[in-house]
Amino acid sequence: MDVRALVFDVFGTVVDWRSGVAREVARLLPDVDDPHELADDWRGRYQPSMEEVRSGRRPWTILDVLHRESLDALLAERGLDPPDTVRAELVLAWHRLDPWPDAVEGLTRLKARFTIGPMSNGNVALLVDMAKRAGLPWDVVLGAEVARHYKPDPGAYDSAPALLALRPEQVGMVAAHVDDLVAARARGLTTFYVHRPDEFGGRVVPPATDPDAALTVSSFTELADLL
Amino acid sequence: MDVRALVFDVFGTVVDWRSGVAREVARLLPDVDDPHELADDWRGRYQPSMEEVRSGRRPWTILDVLHRESLDALLAERGLDPPDTVRAELVLAWHRLDPWPDAVEGLTRLKARFTIGPMSNGNVALLVDMAKRAGLPWDVVLGAEVARHYKPDPGAYDSAPALLALRPEQVGMVAAHVDDLVAARARGLTTFYVHRPDEFGGRVVPPATDPDAALTVSSFTELADLL
Repeated sequence: MDVRALVFDVFGTVVDWRSGVAREVARLLPDVDDPHELADDWRGRYQPSMEEVRSGRRPWTILDVLHRESLDALLAERGLDPPDTVRAELVLAWHRLDPWPDAVEGLTRLKARFTIGPMSNGNVALLVDMAKRAGLPWDVVLGAEVARHYKPDPGAYDSAPALLALRPEQVGMVAAHVDDLVAARARGLTTFYVHRPDEFGGRVVPPATDPDAALTVSSFTELADLL
Repeated sequence: MDVRALVFDVFGTVVDWRSGVAREVARLLPDVDDPHELADDWRGRYQPSMEEVRSGRRPWTILDVLHRESLDALLAERGLDPPDTVRAELVLAWHRLDPWPDAVEGLTRLKARFTIGPMSNGNVALLVDMAKRAGLPWDVVLGAEVARHYKPDPGAYDSAPALLALRPEQVGMVAAHVDDLVAARARGLTTFYVHRPDEFGGRVVPPATDPDAALTVSSFTELADLL
């Protein structure tokens, strides 16, 4: 392997979106009985909202806007009508997610040897806010907004070697989702699978390994040990 | 002022391009009598090369490619014919420039309070390589390649507030060149002038102040003190 840069899926791989969104729902919508269930519902609308853009049915639209639209729909279905300021704060929940316990230490160690950056469907402002709050030591912020393509469209993955002036196999894609790695491999990237069993709060347990990945690890610190 | 992010011109403002390029010329082309003069000649071809792109006469082309073409032309004019590997290494001189003495400390202090990133005509790989070598603690890498517009085209400056989800005046442009700040102000950015009297080795002395900038400083540490 001649990997020079590592790019990371973020939601679920670097940060625990479910706990973070539920925490902000509990704070901002105290009447909601089950904040985790609302977080799951909101997240369930994520892929369909991006599919509108991927399919070309709507022009490029950043994730903050898609999150707001999904939130408005979800609230309407539940007969909830918080003011605009509360809705705007809720959208910022996705900017304020906590990293998994190994993430900052692992990234800091990996940064000494590799260029590191997010390869996320989150928009740049979301990723920068998250990184500054959580101390994620990115060298560069890549991803959907820079590429103007949502994963798993090829244009998202292709943007990393193009912008970093590397060959595709010199870029390692790190993700807790096999479908993300399948799409990255199809573009020639080297892939690393991180098993994150708690992403969905135990409702869905991801596979223990991705046999087609160069490595399967259970944390970023293990990835740093092995690389 | 409600500035939330600071974006920085790089060549001349953050790093000393003339000394760094001359150092690499002396190392790689030991027969050249005056490496600083060659650095000046190379840099003199910078604006004309970008103007080909800005004018639309050629499609988007990253700075590494423009640097290589300018180098090939200047070597040919001087009857120099180093091998391809030496030419490629010389182009990487621009990835290996040293920061001015106050830059890392100043940026590190400013990063505690602001989102910081380069707003340079350098390509992303150049800026990432430079930052990792020199310890420039950028939060995000912005600039010409991300915007696909070379400064001083409006699209370059507009990309910073757009990607950071800020209003133009919430973005501060920091530069040692008044023309860069004039163009940034025209797009609504707040501007900060840094006086770098040594950029051109004393051949050209830039003005002591930019009276239209929000502040004029002589170092990034002074900027951190004042902000």
